[in-house]
Amino acid sequence: MRMVSSYSAFARLVALGSLIVLGAYAQAQAQTDPLPSWNNGPAKQAILSFVKETTTEGSPKFVDPVARIATFDQDGTTWVEQPLYAQGVFAFHQVGVMAAKDPKLKGVEPFKTVLSGDREAIAKLTLPDLEKILAITHTGMTVEVFQKSVQDWIVAAQHPRFHRLYTELIYQPMLEVMQYLRTKGFRTYFVTGGGQDFVRVYSERVYGIPREQVVGSTGDTTFGYDKQGKSELTKVPKGVRVDDKSGKPIGIDLMIGRRPLAAFGNSTGDQQMLEYTQDGGGARLMMLVHHDDATREYAYGADSKIGTFSDALMAEANKRGWVVISMKSDWKRIFAWEQ
Amino acid sequence: MRMVSSYSAFARLVALGSLIVLGAYAQAQAQTDPLPSWNNGPAKQAILSFVKETTTEGSPKFVDPVARIATFDQDGTTWVEQPLYAQGVFAFHQVGVMAAKDPKLKGVEPFKTVLSGDREAIAKLTLPDLEKILAITHTGMTVEVFQKSVQDWIVAAQHPRFHRLYTELIYQPMLEVMQYLRTKGFRTYFVTGGGQDFVRVYSERVYGIPREQVVGSTGDTTFGYDKQGKSELTKVPKGVRVDDKSGKPIGIDLMIGRRPLAAFGNSTGDQQMLEYTQDGGGARLMMLVHHDDATREYAYGADSKIGTFSDALMAEANKRGWVVISMKSDWKRIFAWEQ
Repeated sequence: MRMVSSYSAFARLVALGSLIVLGAYAQAQAQTDPLPSWNNGPAKQAILSFVKETTTEGSPKFVDPVARIATFDQDGTTWVEQPLYAQGVFAFHQVGVMAAKDPKLKGVEPFKTVLSGDREAIAKLTLPDLEKILAITHTGMTVEVFQKSVQDWIVAAQHPRFHRLYTELIYQPMLEVMQYLRTKGFRTYFVTGGGQDFVRVYSERVYGIPREQVVGSTGDTTFGYDKQGKSELTKVPKGVRVDDKSGKPIGIDLMIGRRPLAAFGNSTGDQQMLEYTQDGGGARLMMLVHHDDATREYAYGADSKIGTFSDALMAEANKRGWVVISMKSDWKRIFAWEQ
Repeated sequence: MRMVSSYSAFARLVALGSLIVLGAYAQAQAQTDPLPSWNNGPAKQAILSFVKETTTEGSPKFVDPVARIATFDQDGTTWVEQPLYAQGVFAFHQVGVMAAKDPKLKGVEPFKTVLSGDREAIAKLTLPDLEKILAITHTGMTVEVFQKSVQDWIVAAQHPRFHRLYTELIYQPMLEVMQYLRTKGFRTYFVTGGGQDFVRVYSERVYGIPREQVVGSTGDTTFGYDKQGKSELTKVPKGVRVDDKSGKPIGIDLMIGRRPLAAFGNSTGDQQMLEYTQDGGGARLMMLVHHDDATREYAYGADSKIGTFSDALMAEANKRGWVVISMKSDWKRIFAWEQ
């Protein structure tokens, strides 16, 4: 019987070992916080409750995975938008790149003003001036050539205050929300006023959002062939669709074809997206990031030209039960590199 | 030692059983044909080789899953388009539905002609007539109301020759290709001249293609609020983007943002999509369905107004090495209900 005994002892040991391992695993699972950069509070609780009720089988508010769509504004919602949208900084930079190749631009307005570096004069540029700057830096080239220019810029350009790459200025708490939602079967989308072709360059690498899940402002492209006869698409300054305000639900319908289950924004440009989300009915999550932390990031709201969070928006948020995220009190840390 | 012996015997039995099961499983795996409705031939081989070389780790032509995009035309490529596009049949039907609610339409052309059922007169309708019919049946209502009208029609309407639902007239071999590609990490998209809002109604249920993976012809929508103050999008007869010919690569760039790795079509409307796919370089698969089976489906090509497969397209296919699928010889069965 000696072999039997030793076998039995061995089996008991294995069984005991398995139990210990299983127990530790279960405990780890239970204790792993999917949102470690969030302080405990109503905002964090709203996210956890919403995910639980929409993704737990048997829950009365359970939502089929095919309908689990979450949309995120970008500027001011998932990365820093002050003192100027990254894409605006890119456009000004790109005027310099283009003038180096085509020196006659140096004598032509509004490019001359941009190249002067005179901040006061630049701040006075008119909307038609800015449109000319956008046209020359964003159109008249193939999609690939444009995206190469964005790629060259974004791996090098530094933010004036933080002295870090713009892609390092993404909000860690929002990245955690995106990742958490994806582990729960959600498809995460950008729905941004920024250029669709601009954001697609880095969205996969930085946020884990693939190109086809970027809904943004667009212009027309034309189909043609290069000198070698290869087909290509050229960006042209026509047919601009601005993915902001009413343009957001319109873009969502165009590109996704379904009302989101959750939507995240930070400004009046996101109002209609949140309304459109909520009016789908049932369990929905609408959240607005409020910039109230001048120490760690910026504090701005109703009076800011960039990322305006009007009093009317705050009133609507309160009335409709949207969750306003306080960067100051809801976020344990803002950037991954902090502390 | 009796327990030991019996334990050992039992263990041997279990091990032997496991081996038998594993062996049978491996054999089943090796023998399962992912494309059972395809005859062995160059078309089937082209699909299998392409998938193998792009998805086998270590293959020199291995493609990262994020870039595994396959685009499919719909009419004539994945379902029957003769004698008239399903969406055209829907539009004519819908004129009747609308006239029942709004009898004054019965006296107004071109609706009067449509309602007459006079085939000769209907065949003579002009392009502006057809545009009026599309406008009244496809716009002036919310996206949801439009899609409800499509849903009501598609679960009931029967094809005049096959006396089956249109959704039963999908090509089983192409459905197998879609399913096979998806098991290999591809995202399958429709890129169709048909209406995006039309196809989205049934694409998930019938083809396993979710709404956001339908790229089709679109018109503008406007954002507003209903009488209860709920946000809604209304389809308007403006800003039409036709997803055909050059419109297909443009739609692909707009909605997906990446050249496809594989593209499937059947007519001159798909030419630019296949060029755009191939010109991405590396391992790509371009296929055209050729309708040459009047017995089981239809035989048509250069002379057909619907699904024109011009001689120039055939010449380009041969020159560029695109695979032309013969429905007659490449497809063992065409419809799931056959045999």
